[in-house]
Amino acid sequence: MRRTDTIVAPATGQGGAIAVVRVSGAEAFDVTDRVFRSRRGRVADAEGYTILYGRVMDGESVLDDVLVSVFRAPHSYTGENSVEISCHASTYIVSRLVALLIDAGARAATAGEFTQRAFVNGKMDLSQAEAVADMIASASEADHRIAMNQMRGGFSRDLAELRAELLNITSLLELELDFSEEDVEFADRSAMRQLLERIDTRIHTLAESFRLGNAIKNGVAVAIVGAPNVGKSTLLNRLLNDDRAMVSDVAGTTRDVIEESCTIDGVRFRFMDTAGIRATDDRLEQMGIDRTHGAIERADVVLHLSVAGEECEMLECDAPVIRVFNKADRCGVESGRVAEQTVVISAKTGAGVDALRAVLREVVDTSGLEQGATVVSNMRHYAALRAAETSVEACLRGLELNLTSDMLSEDVREVLFHLGEITGEITTDETLGNIFANFCIGK
Amino acid sequence: MRRTDTIVAPATGQGGAIAVVRVSGAEAFDVTDRVFRSRRGRVADAEGYTILYGRVMDGESVLDDVLVSVFRAPHSYTGENSVEISCHASTYIVSRLVALLIDAGARAATAGEFTQRAFVNGKMDLSQAEAVADMIASASEADHRIAMNQMRGGFSRDLAELRAELLNITSLLELELDFSEEDVEFADRSAMRQLLERIDTRIHTLAESFRLGNAIKNGVAVAIVGAPNVGKSTLLNRLLNDDRAMVSDVAGTTRDVIEESCTIDGVRFRFMDTAGIRATDDRLEQMGIDRTHGAIERADVVLHLSVAGEECEMLECDAPVIRVFNKADRCGVESGRVAEQTVVISAKTGAGVDALRAVLREVVDTSGLEQGATVVSNMRHYAALRAAETSVEACLRGLELNLTSDMLSEDVREVLFHLGEITGEITTDETLGNIFANFCIGK
Repeated sequence: MRRTDTIVAPATGQGGAIAVVRVSGAEAFDVTDRVFRSRRGRVADAEGYTILYGRVMDGESVLDDVLVSVFRAPHSYTGENSVEISCHASTYIVSRLVALLIDAGARAATAGEFTQRAFVNGKMDLSQAEAVADMIASASEADHRIAMNQMRGGFSRDLAELRAELLNITSLLELELDFSEEDVEFADRSAMRQLLERIDTRIHTLAESFRLGNAIKNGVAVAIVGAPNVGKSTLLNRLLNDDRAMVSDVAGTTRDVIEESCTIDGVRFRFMDTAGIRATDDRLEQMGIDRTHGAIERADVVLHLSVAGEECEMLECDAPVIRVFNKADRCGVESGRVAEQTVVISAKTGAGVDALRAVLREVVDTSGLEQGATVVSNMRHYAALRAAETSVEACLRGLELNLTSDMLSEDVREVLFHLGEITGEITTDETLGNIFANFCIGK
Repeated sequence: MRRTDTIVAPATGQGGAIAVVRVSGAEAFDVTDRVFRSRRGRVADAEGYTILYGRVMDGESVLDDVLVSVFRAPHSYTGENSVEISCHASTYIVSRLVALLIDAGARAATAGEFTQRAFVNGKMDLSQAEAVADMIASASEADHRIAMNQMRGGFSRDLAELRAELLNITSLLELELDFSEEDVEFADRSAMRQLLERIDTRIHTLAESFRLGNAIKNGVAVAIVGAPNVGKSTLLNRLLNDDRAMVSDVAGTTRDVIEESCTIDGVRFRFMDTAGIRATDDRLEQMGIDRTHGAIERADVVLHLSVAGEECEMLECDAPVIRVFNKADRCGVESGRVAEQTVVISAKTGAGVDALRAVLREVVDTSGLEQGATVVSNMRHYAALRAAETSVEACLRGLELNLTSDMLSEDVREVLFHLGEITGEITTDETLGNIFANFCIGK
C-alpha cells in the first residue's frame, strides 16, 4: 500500500493569475532539477521552507519563469520530499509543465493521492484526511467550522478518549480471562457498566450530531409550501434578493421544485419553492403538487405560507414547521414575529422577512459548534458510529446476562473496530480507494 | 500615479486543492502579521524567499492552516514587500481571508494592479506587462512562445535597438541645429537615409508580423466551404475527432456557422463549418449562405471542399485557398496530397486528413518564431508600429525634399514617441487604465 514513487499534479483551479503544480515523493527534488534552472542552485541542495526563483526549460526554450517552494521530509504536507512550483496560470504552461515532470520521472497523481500519502505517512488520521476534502468544499462559516474542527483533530481526540476507556475495559476483561479457571472477577462489573453507559451516551451524542452536521454540510433544506397564490415564489425571491422564480398572479405558476441557496448568519439554507397545494384536474399541476410532497419529505424545515387573515389547512409533516402569514401589507396587519414559530410578513415589501430569517436560523442550533464541540458530517463516520453504538449495547446486554469475560471482550473489540474504521487504524485498500477516489486530482 | 498602499487579492482560479492570496505594498508584512500566527515568528522578521507555516486567526478561532511565502522589496513580482498566502481552496476560506486582510489594513486590488505596480516599479516595461496577460491566456505552443518572448523582453530589446539608432540621428540633427547659422551639415544625409531606410524596414517587418501574431493569438480562422452535401460537417467532426456538427444527407443541414478549435502541431485553428453554397428559394437557407460569405471574409485560410470527380465552381476570396476533394472512398481515388495546396481525402474514413492537417499547418509559417524572432500579437503595439512607420516615411520624404534639420528632427521625435508608447516610456494614466482594466483581479 505504501508507495514512494514521485507523483505530480496541478493543485490549483483553472483561471487566475498563478497556478501551482505539486510534486511529491522520494525523487521529487531530482525530478524537479531535471527541468528547472536557478542561479541559486539546485532544488536538491536547497533548505526546506525556502523558495528558488528560476526557469523551467522545455528543451532549449524557456517554458516559464517560476518559483519553486521546497519542503523536506517529514516537514511537508505528504511527509515526503515535496516541491510546489508556482507558474503563470496558462492551460498550456500547466499541462506542459506536468508533461515535462512526467518525462523527467514523475507519475501523474491519482485523485487524492497527496492526502492519501499524508495519511499513510502518519501526518493525519483518516477522519482528518476526509476533513481536508470537506474543508475545500465548504462554502459557509458553519460548514467550514465543522470541517476545520475535524481536520485539526477534534473528532480524533474524542475517538482517542473513547478508545482509551475501551482498552481499559478490554485489559481488565482479558486479565479475568487469564485467571478464568479460578473464577475470579477482577473487573468490577458495576463500574464496568457505568463506564460502558458513559461510552454509549458519548457515541450516541456523536451519532446524533450527524443530523445537524449533514444539514449544515449539504445546506439546510427548507420547503416553502402553501396553497396556490399565497406568495411562495415572491418569498423565495425576497429571501434570495433575486428574481430567481417566475412570479405571476395566476395560480399554479410554479411547477417544478425550484431550489436555491443562500447563507443566513453563517449557515447555508437550500430553499425549495414548490407548486401550491390544492385539488386539481390539471395533470401537469398535479405532477407539480406530487413533487411538493416529495420536497416536504426531504425538508429539514418547512415554511408553511398562507395569507394573513385567511383560513388555511394544517400541514402534517415530520420536520419542524414555521407558520408564515403573508401579505401583511394588504391586510393592514403588523409584520414581525408573533410566536416562537410564527411570523407575519409581506414578501412583497420585505417587511418581517428579517424576523423570518431569525426564526429559521434558530432552528439550526450551532451553539455547540461555536464552543468547539464535534459535529459529525460524514456519512461513513455516521455509519461506523451507529455500528459502534449497536456493539456497545450488545455489550451492556451481555453484562446484564452475566456473560463470560471472553464473550464481553469480543463485543468491546467490535466497538474498537468500528471506531478504528473512522480514524483509519483499521482499514482496507478498498475503503481507502473509495474514500480518496472522491477527492480531486492534486489534493 | 505611484501608490504604495497595501493591496490584496486571490491570485489562483476557482476550484483545486489550494488557493493563493497575494498581498503587496509598504505594509504587506505588518498587515499579514495581524492575522497570522507562526511558531517561527513574525512575517516582518522573516527573510525573503522563505516560507512560514502557521495559522490564520479569525478572532479566537482558526480560519486555516497556511503557508506564507515572504518576498522582500525589490526582489518580488511587484518590486514591493509582498507575501503569498497558500490556503485550502474553499470559497469560504479565500473570501474570509481576503476580508480579514482588508480589516487588517489592506485594500482590495483592482484588475491588473499587481502587474501595474511591477511596471511602475521598473520590474518590466509596458509591453512585457501586457505579455503577462497574454501568457496566462495562451492555450497553444505558438501562442505561448510569442507571449514568452515578449515577456522575457525580446520585443523590448528590438525596440531599444531602434530607439538607440533613432537617438543617434536626433543628436546629429540637433548638433546641426546648434550650428544652423553656419549652414553646416554634420549629419551625413546619405548615411542618414540608409539608416532611416533600415529602421523603416525593421518597423515594417515588425508590423507585418502582426498578421501571423494575431492569427496565432486568436486561433487561425479556417472557413470550410463548398456546395451542399460535399461533407463539410463530416470533415469538421473528423478534424475535431468529435461529433460537434450535425450531419445528415439532407442538403442544407448546417445553417448557423459552427465554430470549434483544435491545435495542430502547436498552433490553434478555429474551424468554421458553414452552410453549403447554392442558389435557393428557402429564406432560412439563404440566410445561412449569407453567413457563409461572412465567414469567408473573416477567414485566414479557406478549405474549399468538393466531391472528387465532380465539377465545382471556383471560389474567389482574398485568403489562401486549400482545395480539398472529398469522398475518395466512394470514387475509388487514392487519398493524400496531390499538389502544394490540393488534397484528396475521405472525411468519412479519415483517409488523407493527416495530409490535410499538414497542408493547413504549412500555411502558418512559424519558423521565425522558433528561432526567437519577435512576432507582434497586440493590437495596440500594431497601431503604434504603423504610426511609427508613417513618421519614418515622412522623415524620408523630408530628406528627399532637403528639409531643415529642425523639421527632420521633429519627425524622428514622432517615431520615438510611437515606439515609446509600446514600452510605456511615454504613457498616460488613461492608457495605463485601459490596459490594466483588461487584466483579471489578482494579476
